[in-house]
Formats: sequence, structure tokens, C-alpha cells
Amino acid sequence: MIRFFLAAAALGILSGQTPAVSNVRGAAYPQVHPDRRVTFQWKAPAAQKVQVMPGGGNNGLGKGPFEMTRSAEGVWSATIGPVQPGFHYYWFLADGVAVNDPNSETYFGWARPTSGIDVPDERLDFYEPKDVPHGDVRMHWYRSKVTGQMRRAFVYAPPGYDANPRTRYPVLYLQHGSGESERGWVAQGRMNFVLDNLLAAGKAKPMIVVMELGYAQRPGETGGRGNEAFGDVMMQDLIPEIDKSFRTLTDRTQRAIAGLSMGGGQAMQIGLANLDRFASIGSFSGAGARNFDVQSSYGGVFKDAAAFNKRVKLFWVGCGREDALFAGSSALHTALDKGGVRHTWSEGPGLHDWQVWRKHLHEFAPLLFRD
Amino acid sequence: MIRFFLAAAALGILSGQTPAVSNVRGAAYPQVHPDRRVTFQWKAPAAQKVQVMPGGGNNGLGKGPFEMTRSAEGVWSATIGPVQPGFHYYWFLADGVAVNDPNSETYFGWARPTSGIDVPDERLDFYEPKDVPHGDVRMHWYRSKVTGQMRRAFVYAPPGYDANPRTRYPVLYLQHGSGESERGWVAQGRMNFVLDNLLAAGKAKPMIVVMELGYAQRPGETGGRGNEAFGDVMMQDLIPEIDKSFRTLTDRTQRAIAGLSMGGGQAMQIGLANLDRFASIGSFSGAGARNFDVQSSYGGVFKDAAAFNKRVKLFWVGCGREDALFAGSSALHTALDKGGVRHTWSEGPGLHDWQVWRKHLHEFAPLLFRD
Repeated sequence: MIRFFLAAAALGILSGQTPAVSNVRGAAYPQVHPDRRVTFQWKAPAAQKVQVMPGGGNNGLGKGPFEMTRSAEGVWSATIGPVQPGFHYYWFLADGVAVNDPNSETYFGWARPTSGIDVPDERLDFYEPKDVPHGDVRMHWYRSKVTGQMRRAFVYAPPGYDANPRTRYPVLYLQHGSGESERGWVAQGRMNFVLDNLLAAGKAKPMIVVMELGYAQRPGETGGRGNEAFGDVMMQDLIPEIDKSFRTLTDRTQRAIAGLSMGGGQAMQIGLANLDRFASIGSFSGAGARNFDVQSSYGGVFKDAAAFNKRVKLFWVGCGREDALFAGSSALHTALDKGGVRHTWSEGPGLHDWQVWRKHLHEFAPLLFRD
Repeated sequence: MIRFFLAAAALGILSGQTPAVSNVRGAAYPQVHPDRRVTFQWKAPAAQKVQVMPGGGNNGLGKGPFEMTRSAEGVWSATIGPVQPGFHYYWFLADGVAVNDPNSETYFGWARPTSGIDVPDERLDFYEPKDVPHGDVRMHWYRSKVTGQMRRAFVYAPPGYDANPRTRYPVLYLQHGSGESERGWVAQGRMNFVLDNLLAAGKAKPMIVVMELGYAQRPGETGGRGNEAFGDVMMQDLIPEIDKSFRTLTDRTQRAIAGLSMGGGQAMQIGLANLDRFASIGSFSGAGARNFDVQSSYGGVFKDAAAFNKRVKLFWVGCGREDALFAGSSALHTALDKGGVRHTWSEGPGLHDWQVWRKHLHEFAPLLFRD
């Protein structure tokens, strides 16, 4: 009995901390405490110094790096926080070199596999898996004519898609941020559970959601950010492929594009340049045009506000107030307002962080494809 | 011009080595040479000693660890091989501690995210993506009554599945090995391309392939290998879920179970104990029963060979000759032969390694679901 308590205390069970849901199966650490402190642990006997580094140096885990302390056996540990709820990238700095935590699943962020921790928000459950019908997420391979390479889209098919083989669905193209991949919206964003829950509550229209890698280059093209050809892939390859392979509604009113950060910028660039194909656009903490000018930016599409307002069903812009991009998003909102351009503006607490983007999707999706 | 050659030489382009397909987007290393040597590189200035460690210490990369040498700038590198073609797990040992290579995608193996390198086999292309119709792989979430938890299956739906909404398909349940996950057969095994290519060539029957995590425990169950409840999950949760959610053929002759290593053992245990549900079984480099006895093992199912031969359409056993499990597989084959139990035996060169399992699937799948 005493043994049990000692073992349980070692695992932190008695004081209520639990392994993070973002851990690999069976890993006891990282652990999340009821007050949202987080304990990390890693064995590296030869290291002189080990730190916990939040992705980018400062995210919902706080401003790092955080020093870890060494046990006699060479196990390093640190308890930090309370941290913000949501998904946060992190890695260890072992004598200054970034390495991942073997106890965490890896998530593609910062242009490489990266550790991550998902900290529950006791006030929110809209992105948790519940006992409602679940849509599938399909990995769909296709050849890109633009790049000459095989590409892979992730496609959310809503519950009922297979059972109703004559029903056609509107489509949201949903993009990740810089350094991430087509996997991000499912693994980090839990977009499938967000949609499942909205649909079960009757709060959104059933829709297909397509997520692709926002990077693409033409054959021989090198350097740059690596996303130069993504607009062409979207318009010339991906949309035709999805319309061919899935039961889509193909009218522009039934097609939307949105994304986060770099993907928000891409949604605005691609969407606003192709209003014959998209009627709804969303930018989540978007990396938009610098020095936005309502008369001239984005090819002058906002200049005739009345025409824009008639043509665009939904133009949604949101950002967290603690986000470094907030000033730009807020300025965009103000300029759109002054220019008479109808749009939905969403601001709230939050960093440049997946918890904000989960909330953005949760706000945005119900507004799509209304009659 | 000289600059170009210097840069190209640094990247190894002039001598023909290329970044591995298993790398993250844009990573120059690891590189595969035309003679199948492999060069690894990692920057870790403070480390005293860095080595390349093949998964398990010895796999198609050879017997490690392999010493890396340090440049003045603290970049460690090693060229090893020629190595065997195929997918091989590896990690770096930095002063004895296992860390992943940030240049490699991670693959779930050895019970954690693990670096991997895929080395082409110039003689084989059956698992390469080609310009043929591609099946989707669907992530399918469902609630398990056995474990009380949400689980996720990967489901390959063959080309044409959506276009033919009245067609029903036979189902292969296909399991990964110890320490791996439901992602292994796609990420490491490229099972979707193997099937796509077989189907395009008319060499296999269109089939659904279901891949699930081979680990499951009942609520409160701890310790052990962690796979104690998987048989119950398969029979009580997964098969009913798949038959409900996909257009399956549900007769036992239209259902098969196979797996590699631990999954091969599970395929034999679950399949042979449930011949009212499965008529075809495959064990790839399988971890089968020790001290196999044809009279008594697996509940005595082989004792009446004539009855077994009538009841079972395909019983397939294969192993690579350099595999530590070869002796056991070979003994199983011999005992089955002596006992008059009809089976297909496949032996060939190869280790306990994904390249062998790709070949096994490529041999096994065409034999399934024949009339």
C-alpha cells in the first residue's frame, strides 16, 4: 500500500497532475497540473545545461528558455507556468542545441518535427472528441502539373458523406502557417473535432474541408520562401482535383478559403485575386499585406466597396490581442471600416497560437455557406 | 560559375548524391549516394561525441553505432554503407543520449517518434508513387467500448470506392509491429502505393485495408505489454465499426488479417481463434508462439489438417533469412508441412525490416479474395 502511494506520488497522480494528451502512448511526462503548471523531464546525464524552449522563444508557455535542474542520475526537470491553455510547440536546448522531447509526439512546426504540449482549457470543450458522429480525414494523393510532383491533401469529409452518395457539399480550403504542413489543422488544431461538434449541434453547414501544404515551387525553382507556386497549385491543380474526386458544389458561393498566419495571407492573396471562384475568405492572425491601403492593395479589389460588398458573402478577419501581428490586423480592420468594406472582425485575448486558431475556426465555420 | 560548382559540390550534387525522400522538406541531409552510402550531418557544437545509431542497434544501415566526426564549426558528419535498400529507423547518440535528426521526418517506431531514412532500390519500384489511380487513406475515429477511449483507424479505400457507391469490398486488417502505430504501414510501408500499383496492373482484387493501433488496455489495466485488449478491440469494436462505416463484404471469405512481427503474432492469434470471421491469415516476420506444436498450439486448430485446409483459404507465412525470427518462422513452416497444413511459405533475403514487409504485402495481397 505504501508502495502504491510512493509510486503514485512519483507519477504525480495524488496531486492531480496528469500526462499531457499530446504525449506518446504511455509516457508519464510532460505532466499538466490542475493549475496549468507543466512539468517536463528528460534524462541526459552528459549534458551540462538543459532548458525548455517554447516554440519561437515565447508562446503560451511563457518566455523561455526555462532552466531545467539535474538530478543525481542525470534526469533534468522543470516545472513552469501556470501556462496558457491550448497547444504549444516546444523543444529542449541541450547545451544550446535544439532536440525534441522523446516523450512528446512530434508535430510539424518550425519547419521540422517539433515537440508539443496540449494544455486543457477547463472552460472550453468545443475541440474535444465527443460522442457525436465523426467525419473522416482523408489523405488524398495527386500529381501536380505545376510542380511536377506528387502532393498530398488532407480532406475532411463530414459525417454522412458516405451514407448520402448523391449529396454534394460546399468546400472550405483551410491553410496552415509558416513552417507547418497539411497535417497541422488536424494534429495541432483538431479541426475535425471542431467541425464534428459544430455539425452535431446544427451550428454549421456540412462541408468538405481541404488542407494542403502551403509550400510549392515550380521545377528548378529554388530559394525564396518556397511558397511561390502555391497559388498556382491551388487554382490549377488542387481545386480541379478536389472537384473531380469529391462530391463538391462548384459554384463560387459554395467555395471558401481561409488560413492562419502565412495561410491567412495566402487566403487573402489567392481568394481576393480569384473572386470568380471564392465568395468567402478568412484570415486568422493573418500575415497580410504591409502598408495596407484600401484603394490600392490586393489589386484594388476594395476600391469599389459597394461592388465588393455585393460580391463577397463573408470576409472574416481575426487576431489575438497579444499577437505581434495584432497591430496589422487591427489596422486592416480599421481601414476596411473606413472604406466601407463589409467584413467580420474578431478580436480577443490570445497570442499567435493554435488555441486562438481553434477559436477562429469555431467562430468562422458557422458563418460559411449560409443561404 | 566557380561559386556554383563549390555550392553544388558542397551539396553533393556533382557526385550524384541526393537528399533522402524521408527528409523534411528542403533538408539537404541525410544524403543517399548512388552506391547506397549515406551521409548524415548534424550541428551540435557542445557535444563531445556524436554517433549514428541504427534502430535497435543493427538494421539495414548495418551494425552501429557509427562514429561521427566534428568540423571546426561543430558540425558532425558520417558517411556509412553501402546500406541495404529500404526504410531504416535511426537516431543520433549525443554523448550517449538518443536524439532525433531534425532533418528527418519522424516515424513512430521504437515506441517514440524516430528518425528514418528511405534508401531507394534501383531494382524495385512496386512501392513508388506512380501515375496510376490512387486510393485515399482515411483517418477514422470511433469510440471503443472495450477500452472506453477514442481510437483512430487508418483505412485505405481503393481507387473507385467513391465513384461506385453500390460496390462492396473485401477487407484486410493489417497490423504494424511492436513499438509502432497505426501510421506505420502508410508512412514506413507505403502500403497505399503498393496496393495502387497492384490494382492498376490488375494483380489484386480491390480491397479495403484497415490499420489500427495494436495496443489496447481495458480501463484501469496497466503494466504488461499494453496490447492485452487488442483482440477484443478488433472483434468487438473495430470489425463492427468498419462494417458499419464502409461498404464491406462481411462473409468470412471476404475478411483477412495480417501483420508484421508483433502484428503477425496478433494476426495468427486473433485470426486462428476466429475462423468464423476470417478465412485468410498472413504473418510477416511474425512473432508467433514459441515451441510451436502442430497438435496443440493455437488451441489445436491445426490438429485436424483436412478440416483446416478446407476452412482456411490462405495461410501465408514469410520471413527474411537474416531475421532473428527466421528460425521460428522456418520451424513453423516445417511443422505445418509435416502436419499436412496447407500454407504459403515465403523466404528470401532480408532482415527484420520494412523493405521485407513491403515485399511481403506485395506477394500476399494478390493471393487474397480470389474466387
